Amino acid sequence: MDTLSMATIESHNPRTGLVAGYVAETPLADVDAAALRAAAAAPSVAEASPATRSSWLRAVADALEAHQEELVAVADAETALGASRLESEVARTAAQLRHYADVAAEGSWLGATVDRPSGADTPELRRLNVPVGPVAVLGSSNFPLAFGIVGNDTGSAIAAGCPVIAKAHPAHPQLDVLLTEIAIAALDEGGAPSGTFGVVHGFSAGQQLVMHPSTAAVAFTGSQAGGFALCRLAASRNAIIPVFAEMGSLNPLVVTPAAAAARTEEIARGFVDSLTLGMGQYCTKPGLLLVPSGHGLVAAVTSAFEAAAPAGWLLTQPIATSYAVGVGRLLEGGGRLLAAIPAVQGGWAASPTLVAATPDQIVYDVAFSEEYFGPVAVVCEYGSEQELEQVLAALPGSLVAAVHGELADDPLLAALTRRLAHLAGRVVVNGYPTGVVVGWAQQHGGPWPATTAPAATSVGAGALARFVRPVAYQNAPADVLPPPIRDDNPWRVPQRIDGKVRRTGTRTRSAQ
Amino acid sequence: MDTLSMATIESHNPRTGLVAGYVAETPLADVDAAALRAAAAAPSVAEASPATRSSWLRAVADALEAHQEELVAVADAETALGASRLESEVARTAAQLRHYADVAAEGSWLGATVDRPSGADTPELRRLNVPVGPVAVLGSSNFPLAFGIVGNDTGSAIAAGCPVIAKAHPAHPQLDVLLTEIAIAALDEGGAPSGTFGVVHGFSAGQQLVMHPSTAAVAFTGSQAGGFALCRLAASRNAIIPVFAEMGSLNPLVVTPAAAAARTEEIARGFVDSLTLGMGQYCTKPGLLLVPSGHGLVAAVTSAFEAAAPAGWLLTQPIATSYAVGVGRLLEGGGRLLAAIPAVQGGWAASPTLVAATPDQIVYDVAFSEEYFGPVAVVCEYGSEQELEQVLAALPGSLVAAVHGELADDPLLAALTRRLAHLAGRVVVNGYPTGVVVGWAQQHGGPWPATTAPAATSVGAGALARFVRPVAYQNAPADVLPPPIRDDNPWRVPQRIDGKVRRTGTRTRSAQ
Repeated sequence: MDTLSMATIESHNPRTGLVAGYVAETPLADVDAAALRAAAAAPSVAEASPATRSSWLRAVADALEAHQEELVAVADAETALGASRLESEVARTAAQLRHYADVAAEGSWLGATVDRPSGADTPELRRLNVPVGPVAVLGSSNFPLAFGIVGNDTGSAIAAGCPVIAKAHPAHPQLDVLLTEIAIAALDEGGAPSGTFGVVHGFSAGQQLVMHPSTAAVAFTGSQAGGFALCRLAASRNAIIPVFAEMGSLNPLVVTPAAAAARTEEIARGFVDSLTLGMGQYCTKPGLLLVPSGHGLVAAVTSAFEAAAPAGWLLTQPIATSYAVGVGRLLEGGGRLLAAIPAVQGGWAASPTLVAATPDQIVYDVAFSEEYFGPVAVVCEYGSEQELEQVLAALPGSLVAAVHGELADDPLLAALTRRLAHLAGRVVVNGYPTGVVVGWAQQHGGPWPATTAPAATSVGAGALARFVRPVAYQNAPADVLPPPIRDDNPWRVPQRIDGKVRRTGTRTRSAQ
Repeated sequence: MDTLSMATIESHNPRTGLVAGYVAETPLADVDAAALRAAAAAPSVAEASPATRSSWLRAVADALEAHQEELVAVADAETALGASRLESEVARTAAQLRHYADVAAEGSWLGATVDRPSGADTPELRRLNVPVGPVAVLGSSNFPLAFGIVGNDTGSAIAAGCPVIAKAHPAHPQLDVLLTEIAIAALDEGGAPSGTFGVVHGFSAGQQLVMHPSTAAVAFTGSQAGGFALCRLAASRNAIIPVFAEMGSLNPLVVTPAAAAARTEEIARGFVDSLTLGMGQYCTKPGLLLVPSGHGLVAAVTSAFEAAAPAGWLLTQPIATSYAVGVGRLLEGGGRLLAAIPAVQGGWAASPTLVAATPDQIVYDVAFSEEYFGPVAVVCEYGSEQELEQVLAALPGSLVAAVHGELADDPLLAALTRRLAHLAGRVVVNGYPTGVVVGWAQQHGGPWPATTAPAATSVGAGALARFVRPVAYQNAPADVLPPPIRDDNPWRVPQRIDGKVRRTGTRTRSAQ
């Protein structure tokens, strides 16, 4: 490699595989400068009120919507995800930022708690959550906007009071250049301190970011290999920092005999739709379908898959290569080919594939319970509840699991719903795993190896909790206390006082 | 070593250093059996209502109080902490268990959240925290009861619905045998499932416990070396699990010029009392005193230390050895000896020591900012606010930091309180770091290397959060949902519905 190619990142068109542009890698001195700017901004970002930080996030959301056309064009050229999907992703990304703005202002995440002295010998304690400091965000290839450099991780980190330095994704570097311009202009206009948000490009830049002494936490969305590597890297620091890696997962979907009998075609079509959405490039893609034998579901799913005939490109050359290797592992390992749709021509096209496996294959060969990113799934027939349990016991943790059962007279539905809660961070009943709503009750996370931190969520109101740590003040005078734990509660956040939660907005009453 | 000595743990009398008894190490097959019993009990423990689990914890608390005399006698023989301190520790341990019982029943920790569908296309989501499964607890030597096998970690884990397997501490193995009998009898009588609580003895048994596939989390209280080793061990598992290690720390105490002038003698006495409590064997011991030069505080502290003339024994031979090595590092590194109290005779006695260091020594020589367990502290005079900041910037994270300032007309007080919040999990104003009240607002944790998980606390209501992970149910029918997220809210726990927190006990109203 010559110096020039080492210092640039190639932007590719997935439809042709051809290079469509270049973006400069960030020199290591500039990564250091960006990290120091974030560290310098950290106190101002932390001390801004949540309402102020909310206004910054809303400014970015507005700017994304204002630039929708341009964003979709640049993103589609680099991802081949299509204009309609990308238009809705711009809208989703703006809505997410507004959600984190709402959550920040509501203030429950601050955990404001006051224990008044219960006697002469006991102190007064006041506890609140404070931002941890600069957060390194490494987004995903498959949601270039919603899980990208201004996606869920960045929105929730800034909402919680942390500056963000994001590493641009090599699958869409030109989009990330545009997003950086839009976000920084909006933050500047909105009055956010310089250093609230920065972006670096390049693999080495990402490593340096994770190792930088001023980085306090890492948020990652991507492959299991990438997440594990980041965990190991962070564990080699002098001061170990948490890595919140949300990785792909198997996401099993189980069908009870009653549901299989009652809704064969409907479940087959729904599964195929969920599996093939975005060419199977969802971290919530159902990668394993467990169906009772003898109900014709395997045939129905195969027909639905062939009828859907999904066609398209994968996001990157490494994803296309891994996909082909993964399908090969399933077939060489004894999986039975149910259907393979011919790949379209050119670029990083892939052949969507459906493979059948036996319960024994899943239990004894790890190849059949791994995630393969892209439009492939394993279908397995179970002969009895006992055999189903043997398969479930062999499965790794997932972000989401789904069960289809009949609401009346289906004893397996309740049992399986509870059983799947041990395997996943979200359990869907009579639905499909793709589609992650952003709200107060969302949980997008799950047991290892779906994430490196099963107590965390990367989507929804709970996402802020990743970027704070509690501090208790003991016998501190009122004028020294941070606003959320003062008696006059100027930010009007929920406070727990002597063990009882007070509603928001008690300021007027407590000031009387 | 012969087979007998490998299979037993020696119980020592710290006052003499002599062996006072033997306890058998747990054979590895029995560790495995204990882990499997805990795994088998996990579903029953998780599904018991918080009120039921509270009754188990209260039964253990009552039993500890009923056996106070016996516990104190056995503990004093192995720890030399003295009857009066140990009597209050039995009371504290019982009170802690009742606190976790209260917190479990109150139910906020369940995080029950309901997002009703906001339109035809949005699902219903209901999220709650579920227990992670069996927790391995490795307690401390210095609080044989309060941070021991039925201490804060065990109490909060069972409160959160997790079975516990504790590793007995080699510093007090006979006490742990007695505690095991008392706790298991109380849990059995209280109706807890067999396997809710188990205890193993021995270093290898502890390692096996951390590596056991059914162990879901590790809670540790002890040295930094021990905590780091456990982190590395857990990171070598196939499925990485979280390690909540609460370790010792430096716990700086800063005095402003105004306070130094106004309260010289009072601060000197208070610091010495806090430093020498329990022969300095507190994880919250103030290990560094930062005082303004020219106010006579160094002389006052030295006099108070000599007047207090602390005398006693350290808990174990390794602690006594580390203490001597640590004091040696300070003196050989150029620390100036301010005072050394002669050690008492026999056993693991130690010579309490006060050492002066310059700001430059603290900034440039890591030996002066490390924790040394036992009755030693470093006193440092700063010449200016700038010099003080240079020292603070060089300090590692701590569990607690303290500041003494004047409430009126002392601009440094507010600035230092905020500054110390960046260094510690708790900031004490005009008080001393030792003494950790158990309550809703307590935070006993802190930035690395005080803990391996700065967002966690090992004391107080927040301690339960370490042992749960969220699960979201999407479109699940009512009869399948766990009680905390049902509309009829049978456990009467706080629920957040469509973003708004409802008070406890809305059952009657919502049923109307």
